[in-house]
Amino acid sequence: MSRWSPDARERLEAAALDLFEEQGFAATTVPQIAERAGLTTRTFFRHFADKREVIYADDQFPRMVRRIFAEADAEAEPLEVVVDGIRRFADQELEGRRAKVLRRTAIIRSDPGLLERSLRKRADLAGAIRTGLLERGVPSTTASLLAQTSASLVELALADWVDQEGDRPFGDIVAEHLEALRAALGLERRPSE
Amino acid sequence: MSRWSPDARERLEAAALDLFEEQGFAATTVPQIAERAGLTTRTFFRHFADKREVIYADDQFPRMVRRIFAEADAEAEPLEVVVDGIRRFADQELEGRRAKVLRRTAIIRSDPGLLERSLRKRADLAGAIRTGLLERGVPSTTASLLAQTSASLVELALADWVDQEGDRPFGDIVAEHLEALRAALGLERRPSE
Repeated sequence: MSRWSPDARERLEAAALDLFEEQGFAATTVPQIAERAGLTTRTFFRHFADKREVIYADDQFPRMVRRIFAEADAEAEPLEVVVDGIRRFADQELEGRRAKVLRRTAIIRSDPGLLERSLRKRADLAGAIRTGLLERGVPSTTASLLAQTSASLVELALADWVDQEGDRPFGDIVAEHLEALRAALGLERRPSE
Repeated sequence: MSRWSPDARERLEAAALDLFEEQGFAATTVPQIAERAGLTTRTFFRHFADKREVIYADDQFPRMVRRIFAEADAEAEPLEVVVDGIRRFADQELEGRRAKVLRRTAIIRSDPGLLERSLRKRADLAGAIRTGLLERGVPSTTASLLAQTSASLVELALADWVDQEGDRPFGDIVAEHLEALRAALGLERRPSE
């Protein structure tokens, strides 16, 4: 049971997701995950820092952000870089993984501790976008605001993409949300000014 | 030392802030705080759930949000309600407390665990704004986006208000950031569409 296994990581991941769904995230222990995968706890800890990491190990966003900024046209507007980048990434990497994303989202929503971790991941995503924008010479305040806005757009689009009945592409949902936000920000009228 | 004290809460708060500054947040224990205040740990736990709560006990934002929506003109645009509400609140309650806010911010920035708690507080603020917007009949997507945007504006404005050399009013900083965000969102051009 402790033999080296070339697909250990995938087996641990599959076992963990099954157990989280069957008996809940909080009730599942690392030894249980290892046992279900036919591996040792030692092997588990070679691949994951803890059971929460199994849920987020597949997190593609930091890599996505680095790629978006690396590939972006030097002349493109900051918002264009982010939104077009998200669309491109989603088309290439998110659309084919819907079932997996759905499973993970359901588990995250079921556990308050995982929701906390998601807040951290959201902050990390915004931080990565902010860094990319600053490196393009975007002023600090605008970089911070655009980064937070982009993280909100991704987060909400992901939730809607998961919850939708149909199969609208993730990128279309982001674009639609951006238009909704623009409309909401443009509608402001201040009769007192 | 265990006598009932009418200003126990204020004394505990003052003692805690002093100790956090003197020896760091992580190194400070509840018994130390109680001793410095001349009170018992039992009294401490009557006022605060833990030492982190001392930092956030003064958090005015949830109350602010409820008041903003309660006092808002029924006809006002959603964004107007939030931004005007923030300005009014800041003028009335934040400007006079600058020294206190500065001390708390410095402590929060010094401790990773407190930064995590701040993410939770930010999410709570966004959640409260979202609820207020939904109750005004704002559609769900717009409510979520405006709530996240508002929380970002408040968070960034608070950081800038704390860090600034001068004494620009908090409300002016929020308004300025909103204009920066609008400009950034309006600049998007998509030659491919």
